[in-house]
Amino acid sequence: MQNRSHCPIVFALDLIGDKWSLIILRDIILFDKKFYKDFADSQERISTNILADRLAKLEAARIISKKGDTEDKKRFIYRPTEKGLALIPMMLEMVLWSAQYDKKTAASADVLKRIKKDPVKFAEDIKNRFR
Amino acid sequence: MQNRSHCPIVFALDLIGDKWSLIILRDIILFDKKFYKDFADSQERISTNILADRLAKLEAARIISKKGDTEDKKRFIYRPTEKGLALIPMMLEMVLWSAQYDKKTAASADVLKRIKKDPVKFAEDIKNRFR
Repeated sequence: MQNRSHCPIVFALDLIGDKWSLIILRDIILFDKKFYKDFADSQERISTNILADRLAKLEAARIISKKGDTEDKKRFIYRPTEKGLALIPMMLEMVLWSAQYDKKTAASADVLKRIKKDPVKFAEDIKNRFR
Repeated sequence: MQNRSHCPIVFALDLIGDKWSLIILRDIILFDKKFYKDFADSQERISTNILADRLAKLEAARIISKKGDTEDKKRFIYRPTEKGLALIPMMLEMVLWSAQYDKKTAASADVLKRIKKDPVKFAEDIKNRFR
C-alpha cells in the first residue's frame, strides 16, 4: 500500500496495522514484558520468525527501543519510546470497544471503570512507569 | 490466533486487526462512502477479492450492514452499525497519533483542533449522520 496522500489512518496502519505488532506492543506497554523470550511465551503463540520481524519493524519505526541488558549481556531489553507510549490512548479505546462487545471479555470491571472515568490519567499512569 | 483468554486487545484485532478492514471502515464512516465501487476506487487500490472478503467479514461481525439500494436494485448500500460506529474513538486516536508523527499528514489543523477539544462530541457528530 502506498500512502502518498498521507492519510492519517493509513499512516498508523502502515506502522502498526498488523495483528502481531499490536500484540507485541500490548505485551511491552500493558503487560510490562521486556525480553524476547517473554514475547515468544505469550499465549497467542507468535512464531519466532514473525516475532523477530515485527520487533525489527517496530524498532525501525522508533516505536520501541532495544538495548543490551546490563545484567545479562546475551539478551536485550525492549522498551516503548515516547512514540510508542503515545499509542496508549488508541489501545485503551480498543479495550473499551472490546469490553462492550465481547461478553466474555477478560478486561476487569475495575480497569474499565478507571479508563472510562479518566482516560488521560490512566494513560499517563502507564507512561510514567516507563519514564 | 486463538483468543481463548478473551484479551480485549486480541478481540478487537481478530475483527479489525487488518489494514484493509480499517481502510474500508474509514471509507464508510469517515469518508461517507456507501457502494462497492466507491471502496474499489479508493486511492489505496484495494484488490477486488480482498475487498469482497473484508466486506463479508465486517458484515459477519455486525460492524457494517448491507442492504439493497432502492434506487438501483443491482447494487448494495453498506452502512456502519452501532458496533461499527463505536470504533470511531479508536480511529480518532489513530488520527491524532499519526498527525503527531507524520510531518506530511493530510489531517487538517482544523479537524485536529476539533478532535482534541472535544473528542466525544466529534465522534457523536459523525454518529448522528448515520442515525
